[in-house]
Amino acid sequence: MTTTLTYSEIMEMEQRQRAHLINSIGGFKSVALIGSTDTKGQTNLAIFSSIVHIGSNPPLLSFIMRPDSVERHTLANILDSRFYTINHINAHIYEKAHQTSARYPKLVSEFDATGLTPEYKNEFVAPFVKESQIQIAIEFKERIEISINQTIMIIGEIKAIYFPSDCLSLDGFMNIEKAGTISVSGLDSYHTTQVLKRLDYAKP
Amino acid sequence: MTTTLTYSEIMEMEQRQRAHLINSIGGFKSVALIGSTDTKGQTNLAIFSSIVHIGSNPPLLSFIMRPDSVERHTLANILDSRFYTINHINAHIYEKAHQTSARYPKLVSEFDATGLTPEYKNEFVAPFVKESQIQIAIEFKERIEISINQTIMIIGEIKAIYFPSDCLSLDGFMNIEKAGTISVSGLDSYHTTQVLKRLDYAKP
Repeated sequence: MTTTLTYSEIMEMEQRQRAHLINSIGGFKSVALIGSTDTKGQTNLAIFSSIVHIGSNPPLLSFIMRPDSVERHTLANILDSRFYTINHINAHIYEKAHQTSARYPKLVSEFDATGLTPEYKNEFVAPFVKESQIQIAIEFKERIEISINQTIMIIGEIKAIYFPSDCLSLDGFMNIEKAGTISVSGLDSYHTTQVLKRLDYAKP
Repeated sequence: MTTTLTYSEIMEMEQRQRAHLINSIGGFKSVALIGSTDTKGQTNLAIFSSIVHIGSNPPLLSFIMRPDSVERHTLANILDSRFYTINHINAHIYEKAHQTSARYPKLVSEFDATGLTPEYKNEFVAPFVKESQIQIAIEFKERIEISINQTIMIIGEIKAIYFPSDCLSLDGFMNIEKAGTISVSGLDSYHTTQVLKRLDYAKP
């Protein structure tokens, strides 16, 4: 049996209920931890489910944030230090990763609060998550204000990728399922994956 | 063992190889069919893996497109008719869904080419995909040019949602795994999911 929800029914929902619905209705999402630091070395770690591929040449990833949320420390740090990290989440750390969404004060690092381990390498200023199996170093490139609801899109360029050696295919495909990367639905539902098939490039 | 890919190594990759890498490195992605029509009734159906939640009040979803790609018919239709549909993909139709990415001429509807069935309801101008278990009616709201690489972000407002009645939770969460929705990694790897857990709202 099929149910229909109209625009007015959606708008009449209680705010938290509508947030659950609209966050889950767009499909499964990437989920990752963004690590950042201010220029004084105060670190921040926050979970995001809006990371999207913008282009491959140059290699660009974006994510969306709301400036009035817990994400504001991440935004301030990125604008301050210009670099950040994107760290994949696996089944061993998803509960700690989720906990970074709690509203900690600026002076509390979510690394300390959750027990995830900051890792520094190759003189990159922002902290990686040691427990993440795939880690990406990013340089901030562009901030786009989305006027319709005052959200912000941040675009960054990939400077380095760290990954398990056996997960990169000859054709360039990174087997993130093999690496243990998980997905999220809505605000709080975490999922492992099971591959159906890789399909060939489609021709008419 | 861990491997590192630096920016210059990524830029030196063959173009298709780099596309596979960067499309897969951001994590699992939503994947859905966008149905559209021009004002003469010529329909188009295209697969997108960049659908992202922009906000819940009002309910907004975005996606990214490249104007020089097969996606250009979708863009022209949306700007022409102002309405489109987002249709979830399940394991029964993912091969047909993938086939919509082939470069068909404008006068060929991907519905005809792939055997997916257009469905019209409630006088909404754009076609839904009958075989999709979750269907969303969208009104075009905003087009944002991403200057760094000339991609385009399209933002639309949800006007209606059609879904299996037993998939909506009391708290508003839509159980898309129960509905059979799948995810994609990279350009061509399709995955079912298996829930780990829904977690509570995080507090410090």
